[in-house]
This record gives sequence, C-alpha cells and structure tokens, in this order.
Amino acid sequence: MASEHVVRHFQEELEQLKARLLVMGGLAEEQVRLAVKGLVERDRDLIDRVLMGDEPVNALHIEIDNRCFTLLALYQPMAVDLRAIVAAVKINTDLERVGDLAINIAEAGRQYSSHPPVKKLIDIPRMATIAQRMLRDALDAFVRRDTALAQGVLNEDDALDALKTQIFRELLTYMLQDPGTIEPALDLILISRHLERIGDHATNIAEDVIFMVSAKDVRHHAAEGG
Amino acid sequence: MASEHVVRHFQEELEQLKARLLVMGGLAEEQVRLAVKGLVERDRDLIDRVLMGDEPVNALHIEIDNRCFTLLALYQPMAVDLRAIVAAVKINTDLERVGDLAINIAEAGRQYSSHPPVKKLIDIPRMATIAQRMLRDALDAFVRRDTALAQGVLNEDDALDALKTQIFRELLTYMLQDPGTIEPALDLILISRHLERIGDHATNIAEDVIFMVSAKDVRHHAAEGG
Repeated sequence: MASEHVVRHFQEELEQLKARLLVMGGLAEEQVRLAVKGLVERDRDLIDRVLMGDEPVNALHIEIDNRCFTLLALYQPMAVDLRAIVAAVKINTDLERVGDLAINIAEAGRQYSSHPPVKKLIDIPRMATIAQRMLRDALDAFVRRDTALAQGVLNEDDALDALKTQIFRELLTYMLQDPGTIEPALDLILISRHLERIGDHATNIAEDVIFMVSAKDVRHHAAEGG
Repeated sequence: MASEHVVRHFQEELEQLKARLLVMGGLAEEQVRLAVKGLVERDRDLIDRVLMGDEPVNALHIEIDNRCFTLLALYQPMAVDLRAIVAAVKINTDLERVGDLAINIAEAGRQYSSHPPVKKLIDIPRMATIAQRMLRDALDAFVRRDTALAQGVLNEDDALDALKTQIFRELLTYMLQDPGTIEPALDLILISRHLERIGDHATNIAEDVIFMVSAKDVRHHAAEGG
C-alpha cells in the first residue's frame, strides 16, 4: 500500500468489513437468543423460525469471506492491517458456526418440547446470556481493537464451564430417579454443550483480537512459555 | 510477486507449509486414534498419554499460523496462491480443534472406564475410522488440489451422521432399561458427538479445498443458487 489515497480506501473498506461482521454477529446472536427463548417458552413457531432462519448468516459468511479476499488481493496489507483481515476470516468462520449451533439448539429444543418438561429452565438461559454477552464483547473488542475487553471475554469462559457441569450433574440426578426424564434431559445436556461451544467461539475471537492488536499469541499459553 | 526467483521461493515455502499441515494432521489423527483405542481397550495409560499429548499439535498450530502470515506479508500472493494460504489458515484452525476433540474423547473415555462397560464398542471405532479417513483425504485433497477427493469427503459425512444416530438410539435403549448404564452411556453419546465434529472439520477442509481450486463456494449450497 503506497499512496494516501489507497490507504484511505483500504481503511474505508476495512470499516465496512467490520460493520458487516457486526451485522453477522448480531444475526447469529439473535438466532441463539430466539432458539433458547423458543426452548424455555416451548414455542414451536419460534423454534421453526430459527430453523428456517439461517440463510442471512450463511449469505453474510460468503460475502465477508469475499470481502477479505478482495482486501488481501487489492491492498496487500501489512502488520496490524494484515492481522486484522486474517482475524476477520477466522471470526467469520466462528460466527457461521455460532449460527449452526443456534440451529442445533433449536433442533434439540423442538425434540425437548415433544416431552413433558423435566424442570423449570434457569441455568440454560443463564448460560445463553453469558455466551451471547461473550460473543458481543468479543466482536466489540475486535472492532475497537480493545485487548482489555478481549481479556474479559477469556475470563468469562470459566463461568460457562461451571454452569455446564452443574446442569449436567442436576440432570443426571433426574435421569437416575426417573427414566421418563432421560430423553428430554439428554436434549438439555446437548443444548448446554452447544452453548458452551458458543462460548468457545467467543473465546477464539477474543484470542484473535489479542493477537491482532499485540501480535502476542495467547493461545495454548504460548505467551507464558516464550 | 514479480521475478522468477521470488515465485520459486514462494512455491518452496508453500510446499513446506503443506508438509507442516500434513504433519499436524497426522498428529491430530493419531491423537484421535489413540483416544478411541484407549476407550475401547479401557487402557488408562494410553488415555493419559493422549491427555498429555496435545503440546505438539498446539505448537504446530502457532508455527503454521506464523508461516501463513509470513507468506502473505512477504509474497503478497494472488488468485489460487492467495486462496491456498487463506485455506491453510482455516485448515490449521480445524486441525487444532481436532486435537482438542481427541482430548475431549480421552476425557470422556477416562470417565467411561470408571464404570462397568455398557456394551462391546463396535460403532464408535467405526465412526472413528471414517472420521480419520475423512480427515486424511481432506488433507490429501488440499495438498494435491484434488477436488474429486474433496467431494468424496463431503459424501462420507452422511455415513458418520447415520452411525451417530444409531449409537444414540441404541444407548437410549440401554439407559431406559438400566439406570446403572446412564452415566457411562452418556460418555459414549458425547464421544460419538466429538467424532461427528471431527467429520465436520474434515468437511470444512474439503469445502476449503474446492473453493481454493475452483473459486467455487460449495458451502451453504451457494453454487446451486448462483
């Protein structure tokens, strides 16, 4: 990238790319929110809406990938700009998977609603709230190049893990006491795993942000080792 | 990329990158193989070896990411070469996740081995064999730019899905008949999900290969729509 003109163009297109990633993140997060709402309220219409609603996220997945290729090919960015585009490629993949996980939650939610409810759902919506916030914060951290916010996302992962374990133990108790709860309890266990994975994707994004900004690799605790 | 000299250097480094991805794929696949062997043979030592053996895959993950950044920054590749490097970034992420899934299988396998066996394990090793083959074929397809082989990987995913469903139904029967099997059967169900996800990663790689070679996007059936 040489002239001021070219630099300005690149920065404009990078801003657009970020804006599209935020839109995609918002859509994926909304799919998760609706899937969990559909589960909690046993609302089959809502669940069906989620199941049929993956098209916008998938379309954005392809659009954003194309934008990244165009930016790499046309501007041949260096240093932090290069890391930002490569991060965008990875984040795009993570968000697409979050969209898939919302579908998985909706599918398990539909199954769950064909059985009598096992219990009042408290911890699963709690997990969903944390996972959605992690995702939002990770994307904000990307857009603002905010490593402190990204670090905050990494710290939240433990809460999600603890809730997952708690949900598992509680549901196991139900299953052992009453075999009639085995099938629906299995649906809930799988849903809690899907939510955990959404948190994993937010964690991936946060790690990418820290690498993008500082060129410091926090994956696998490499920073401590090196 | 201008001079012949530079082009040759790039191609050499691209070959090295591919070779490193193959090594990483081999390590990840071996972790999966050993985790499932440890599960089937109830071999705690083997399981512990898997649990402590994720360091080489993680080190390669960082090394390969760095190679990709260097190639992008130094050579500013275009067209199929650019797509190959971006594909390598994505494949690298997929392989790292496969390594994580081997750990997850080993953890569930360790849990499983603390209970009496539910049944003779037939379908889980079968799933593992298919998932490993998909992974190997997807990586070979990347290295050889072989879209037919990549398409073959996509076709195998259904077999994995069918086995997962069959395993689930069978284990559900055990759980309903004997609550004593609930805990170990849950471990097996989760392991079958981990294996399914390894197949998903192989599928991702195969899709990246097809895009790299043909610039045709087969994700979300976009090719049919466009």
